[in-house]
Amino acid sequence: MPWEKSFDTDQAIDRATQVFWAKGYEATSLADLMNAMGINKGSFYNAFGSKKKLFTESLLKYDREQRKQFFADLSAMNDPVTAITKIFDELVGQSLSDKELKGCFLVNTALDLPNHDKDTKGTVTKGFKEVVSFFKAQIELGQTSGVIPSEINPDITSKGLFALLVGLRVLSRGAYDYESLKAIRAQAVDLIS
Amino acid sequence: MPWEKSFDTDQAIDRATQVFWAKGYEATSLADLMNAMGINKGSFYNAFGSKKKLFTESLLKYDREQRKQFFADLSAMNDPVTAITKIFDELVGQSLSDKELKGCFLVNTALDLPNHDKDTKGTVTKGFKEVVSFFKAQIELGQTSGVIPSEINPDITSKGLFALLVGLRVLSRGAYDYESLKAIRAQAVDLIS
Repeated sequence: MPWEKSFDTDQAIDRATQVFWAKGYEATSLADLMNAMGINKGSFYNAFGSKKKLFTESLLKYDREQRKQFFADLSAMNDPVTAITKIFDELVGQSLSDKELKGCFLVNTALDLPNHDKDTKGTVTKGFKEVVSFFKAQIELGQTSGVIPSEINPDITSKGLFALLVGLRVLSRGAYDYESLKAIRAQAVDLIS
Repeated sequence: MPWEKSFDTDQAIDRATQVFWAKGYEATSLADLMNAMGINKGSFYNAFGSKKKLFTESLLKYDREQRKQFFADLSAMNDPVTAITKIFDELVGQSLSDKELKGCFLVNTALDLPNHDKDTKGTVTKGFKEVVSFFKAQIELGQTSGVIPSEINPDITSKGLFALLVGLRVLSRGAYDYESLKAIRAQAVDLIS
């Protein structure tokens, strides 16, 4: 009889994601993962192969279900100023509601990129490029409809907005207070005004 | 006869700093440190007490000798637009010249703040507050002398500039290419124009 899983793989990956996200790859032990996932060593290796492979799956799932979904919903609004403002409002809101101050799993991983492999670098840079492209498309959309000034450079401003977003995510892990995070949000809105 | 050190403490801390800076606190092993510092276990514990205590010394020394000194030199220029531009030029330049892509030791630590103790959080937040104050003072100086527009809000813009700086430091660890880092620099200059 072939080996069979006695647990929900998707749920187990989500639980592992919470640990990798909060602690980072290196600081996460196999014991942390097995504990969070509620599975034993045999099941862990049978299902996921290694800590590294599980990390790759966690990051891809986060990118697909959280990052991509978030920006797809914003694109669908078809209202660039509101969409860009909403991103920063949501991220400030998340910082306040997350007691673990986890920030963003992709940004946390980006900060440690020299210590990760090519696949991880690929996932992070592709995700980031898509966000910059989102900002650029929204700026161009706003310029076409006249709600964003035409003298704003979409290339530079999209990259600037993304750097502010990354800064906000880092500073929301304990270095900035609520008022300072709101100032980053105000600065982002200024950039497209 | 009391125990005597047979090595240069300052130099040993600097070597340890390079490891903590590149790999982060958790991923740095005692073997990594002893290897970089060229000392044995006995000397290590006698001189520094623990990995944690050495990390604290490393971060404080970096903050004092690199971060503080860098901003003191910029303040002394008494030319706010050039000083602010120079910061971003220097950081883009550093990203290009550092093959290890280490970024900034304080920013790397800030990203992992929930996993550090109160002393580390204190060092990071104090350092960051001083940089925000630097930006604010430079903006006000520029407004007094007329080189920075008076309608710019020094509180919001200083925090925005700092978030851009943090974003640049994170993205310079492999996620952004040279052109994109230059766009962050251009965005920062736009904020004070």
